[in-house]
Parts: sequence; structure tokens; C-alpha cells
Amino acid sequence: MKRLRFEALRLLLLAAIVTVGAAARAQTDALPSWNDGAAKQAIVAFVQATTTAGSPQFVPPAERIATFDQDGTLWVEHPMYAQLVYCLERVPAVVKAKPALANVEPFKTVMSGNRQALAKLTEADLLKIVAATLTGMTVEDFQGQVRAWLAQARDPRWKRPYTDLTYLPMQEVLSYLRANGFKTYIVTGGGMDFVRVFSEATYGIPPEQVVGSAGATTFGYAKDGAPRLVKEPKLLLNDDKAGKPEGIHLVIGRRPVMSVGNSDGDRQMLEYTKAGAGARLSMIVLHDDAQREYAYGPAAGLPATKVGAFTQPMFDEAGRKGFTVISMRNDWKRIFSFE
Amino acid sequence: MKRLRFEALRLLLLAAIVTVGAAARAQTDALPSWNDGAAKQAIVAFVQATTTAGSPQFVPPAERIATFDQDGTLWVEHPMYAQLVYCLERVPAVVKAKPALANVEPFKTVMSGNRQALAKLTEADLLKIVAATLTGMTVEDFQGQVRAWLAQARDPRWKRPYTDLTYLPMQEVLSYLRANGFKTYIVTGGGMDFVRVFSEATYGIPPEQVVGSAGATTFGYAKDGAPRLVKEPKLLLNDDKAGKPEGIHLVIGRRPVMSVGNSDGDRQMLEYTKAGAGARLSMIVLHDDAQREYAYGPAAGLPATKVGAFTQPMFDEAGRKGFTVISMRNDWKRIFSFE
Repeated sequence: MKRLRFEALRLLLLAAIVTVGAAARAQTDALPSWNDGAAKQAIVAFVQATTTAGSPQFVPPAERIATFDQDGTLWVEHPMYAQLVYCLERVPAVVKAKPALANVEPFKTVMSGNRQALAKLTEADLLKIVAATLTGMTVEDFQGQVRAWLAQARDPRWKRPYTDLTYLPMQEVLSYLRANGFKTYIVTGGGMDFVRVFSEATYGIPPEQVVGSAGATTFGYAKDGAPRLVKEPKLLLNDDKAGKPEGIHLVIGRRPVMSVGNSDGDRQMLEYTKAGAGARLSMIVLHDDAQREYAYGPAAGLPATKVGAFTQPMFDEAGRKGFTVISMRNDWKRIFSFE
Repeated sequence: MKRLRFEALRLLLLAAIVTVGAAARAQTDALPSWNDGAAKQAIVAFVQATTTAGSPQFVPPAERIATFDQDGTLWVEHPMYAQLVYCLERVPAVVKAKPALANVEPFKTVMSGNRQALAKLTEADLLKIVAATLTGMTVEDFQGQVRAWLAQARDPRWKRPYTDLTYLPMQEVLSYLRANGFKTYIVTGGGMDFVRVFSEATYGIPPEQVVGSAGATTFGYAKDGAPRLVKEPKLLLNDDKAGKPEGIHLVIGRRPVMSVGNSDGDRQMLEYTKAGAGARLSMIVLHDDAQREYAYGPAAGLPATKVGAFTQPMFDEAGRKGFTVISMRNDWKRIFSFE
């Protein structure tokens, strides 16, 4: 009996520790890299309103879908989208496999390494490079090529792997949402197959929760009879602008309750999200921190750039439609985990 | 102290109850509607091999993807696919909205109710009916129309809602897989938007885990400015035969470790699944029970039909490639939950 009592006391103590631990965790700030401003308050208020039982804005767990643009929203997009860097840096391997391409434009220019000539490549040139580097192989071969590139590629400013350049405050939002029963999705104008290679390790977002621009694949058989899927230069889904809500419907089949973006390419996704019934949160990231990251976009009174700018009309709409603006300079205490 | 001891004893008792309960559950048969044959043993052995820590065939939870055809695999497909019944029964409402159609074929024939004439409709006729009944409305309007139909439609043999006609043994497999960390998907030749309306309530499979034939949607604005998605008569994904692994790659982005089908339309999905590394399970349902359900398909020595038959070459391949055959007559103790 004495032993039993001891065991019982041990159990009680354990229960007490667990209870105190839970209370301590509940009081922990889930968004420590955010300054205490309107953006952070909007996120916390939204999560509390949608997940507190009995709240008039309660959203059942199954419907807690949150969608995030990637380039410029979850990670750095300047001075060039990581996937475009991938395509350009992949050209030498493509030319090695098909030497005749060395004398064909735009591959000749890319191989020359002449930066001035590179900057003059047209969109048609880039599409040829994209087709040559992203299609014509099995999906497994492509995944292996991207993995190998990610392991050695470094961005030009921080000299770090691209997957290090995710925004810590946004990583905290992803974790905070998941801890509250949300399913987090990436909805990117970038390639679905490209982002799926690293989404799980980088963001905790599994491949099946990545929506992106997608080419067709063709099912067939290798010479040894093994079934395989080969990536084709045929666009199935251009996941940008109107293509974002269309892609969300195709892959997810539900309207998100929360969306975050940072460019005109995200406008329709933010509108579609915000127009649903009940509590909704649409946010745009404003790149206004030239020192710690980059400053671009006319809304910040800054010059427009080719990459990821949103325009004054979208900024005006954000005010009218109640999109919450996230200022990198003001709202983010830290930007990267390596800082 | 006396009170504390009482509380402690209560906790101990509680802990004991919980432990005993868990042990009892672990011994419960997860597949009670299955007879103890090769098919049931294959399922249980596969789940144990892929989920037991330390097993050489262990599959990490994130990669436990199982894909199921719907028509003829999860529910009855005879004498006509439920979605085709939906399209035909929807015609009067379409004609009411556009009275001019009453004098145009194939709508005139459908409105006549003449069964002999109906049976002669060509595939081109059916495509016109499909386009008229599945497209041209917002996704929300479509969902409402399907929900209203499901609430009142009854199948011709059992006089029950179509969603009652799911196979209890397959429902048990879905639950058993999910209890062991698998994500269960429907991969259907039927309409993705159609099946998504009832997949969660019927199978416990959320809309985002349904892959199916999909038309394009177009993002735009209603007269009042509200953003909306309208269903278009343009096929994006024909989720049948080679389209099944292609659709799996598009929506899921991973190769399944287990797949179940019942027709030639599932062949490529079963091959693709089986060809992956490690433990794999591909199964086909043989409709050989004319008394309790239907008997069809040449593999059963039975006449081929237009709906869901698989052919002798596929049956031969099943043997060669190690697809496990599920005989409805021999493997299923019960077929429906209402029996």
C-alpha cells in the first residue's frame, strides 16, 4: 500500500507538472519576431476568433485553410527569383547533354556569362530556358536535380542556401496557424514541382499542400517497362493573378479563410479569400526595409522593379477592402533566423 | 492528506482503465466485414510492415499515401454511374432555365423519358448533357445543386440515397489506414467537384483529398463586384487511365504506396503505385457477386458491360504484377452497412 501511495503521488506530481507546463505554453508569445503592431494583433485576433469554441466567428477545423504566396512573402525574391537562378545555372548541364545547343540562342548567351547580354534576354528567351531546364525528364530525375542544386547554390548577398532566406516572422505564423488546427498551403506563381522538393523541410508544408504553376506530365514506360511520369513543356496551370484562386479550387477545392501575398499576382487570391462569409484575413507584405532586406514597390514610394512589385492601385484596394499591410521595417523585429 | 490519497487512487484507477481499454482496442479486428482470406491478410500485412518502427519496409507517416478509385471500388457503379444519373436528372431544371433547349437534341430525348431512346444516346450527346449540367454556374451554386439532388435521389435497386451504397469493407479499410497514419485519397474518373461535395461526410475524405476529372474554372466578378469562380466546359484533367497517375502527380505530388481500383481505367494507377520502391500494395475489386451486388467483367467469366468492366489482359497483368484481387463474393462478409 505504501508503494501504491508513492506511485499515486508521483502520478499526481506528474499531472501537476503537465498542467503548469500547458499554462506556461499558452502564455508564450507564438510570434516573438513580430513587433506588437496592427499586423501582429490582426493575426492573433483572427486566430482567436476562428478557433475559440463558442466564438461567433468560429471556423470548424476542416475549413481552416490558409494560403501563402512564396516569393517575397515567405522568402526573398530579390534580385532574382530562386527558380530563375536555378534555370540559368542548370543550362551548362543541359548543354553538356545536348552539345548542339551551345551555338543556339538563348543558350549561347547564358553560357557566355556576359551579364549585360543576360540582362537583355527577352521573355521568349526565358521561356526557352525554362522549357529546357524544367521539362523532358522524369519527375524523379527533376527532383534529384533540384535537390543537388539547392545543396550547393548560394544567394549573392547573404552567401547562404536559398532555403535559409525564409522570413522568420512568417515561419512563426505558419507554425502558429498549424498549432491552431489550420492547414497551411503555399500558392505560388513559381513551379509546383520545384517548390515541392523543399517545402516540407523548409516550411513544414508537405508537397500535397503546394499549389503552383504546373506543366503537364505524361505517363508512359521506360525501356525496361517501368512506369514513369515525364515532365512536358505544356502549361496546365499558370498560378498567377486569376490563376491563383483557380489553382486553389483545382487543388484544394475550398475557399481559404486566410491568405498572404506581396504582389499584384496575389490580388485575386486575397480578394477571393476576403469575400467569403465569416472571419477572413487577407494580408500583403510591404518590402520597405532596404537595410535588412530590400525596398521595392511604388506603394512604398519606391521604384517599381520587374520582380514582385505591387502597384499603387492594389495598395489603394488593400485599404478599401481591408487587407492588412505587413511592413517589414515596422512589423518585423527579426527577418531571418540566422541574424 | 486523506482526500489527496483518494484523488490519487482515482487517478490510478483511471490510468488502469485507459490502459486496459487500449489493449482491448489493439486486439479488435479493424476489418470485421472481411472474411479471413488472402485479400484481408494482404492489407493487414501491408499496414503492419509499413507502420511498425524498425520494420525493413517502414514508411514514414508523411509518405503514407493511399489512393482509391470511387465508382465500383468504394461504391456501386451499376447500372449507371451516380454522376451520370445526376446529369440526366438535372436536365429538366436546365431546360426550365433555358426553355429553347426543350426542342434541341439530346435534351428533347432526355425530357421525353423514353428509355429506349435514352439508351441510344451517343457519347457526343452525353458530353452535351454533361456540359449543360456541370458548367456555366459558380462553384458554390454547383455544390448547392448536387447537395439538393443527393438529399432526394434514390438508386433504382435498394431505393436508398446513393451515399448509402458505399462498400462497408472498403470503409473499414479507409478507417484502418487513417488510424495507422495514412492519408486516404479518392482518385476518380468522375468529376472532382461532384465527388468533393459528399466525400467528407460519406468517406471521411476531405475535398482536398479528392482527385478527379476536372474542368477549368474562370475567376471573375459578379454584378455586385463579388469575386467568384465559374465552371467552364473545358477539360483540364481527364482523370482516367494514364490520367490517373498524372492527376495524382498534379494534386498530390507523391507516388502512392497503396492503390485500389476495379477497372481498366485504374490500370496505370495500380502500375505506378506498384512500381515504387519498398512495400507497395495494388488491389483490384472483382465484381463477382450477382446476388448481393452485381457480377460483371470478363475476368469473372461474365459478359462485359459499358460500366466499369476490366478486361482479361488487365486480369492477366494483375497476376503477373502481383496486384491482389478482392473477390466481393468470397472476401466480403457484408457489403453494405444497411444489410
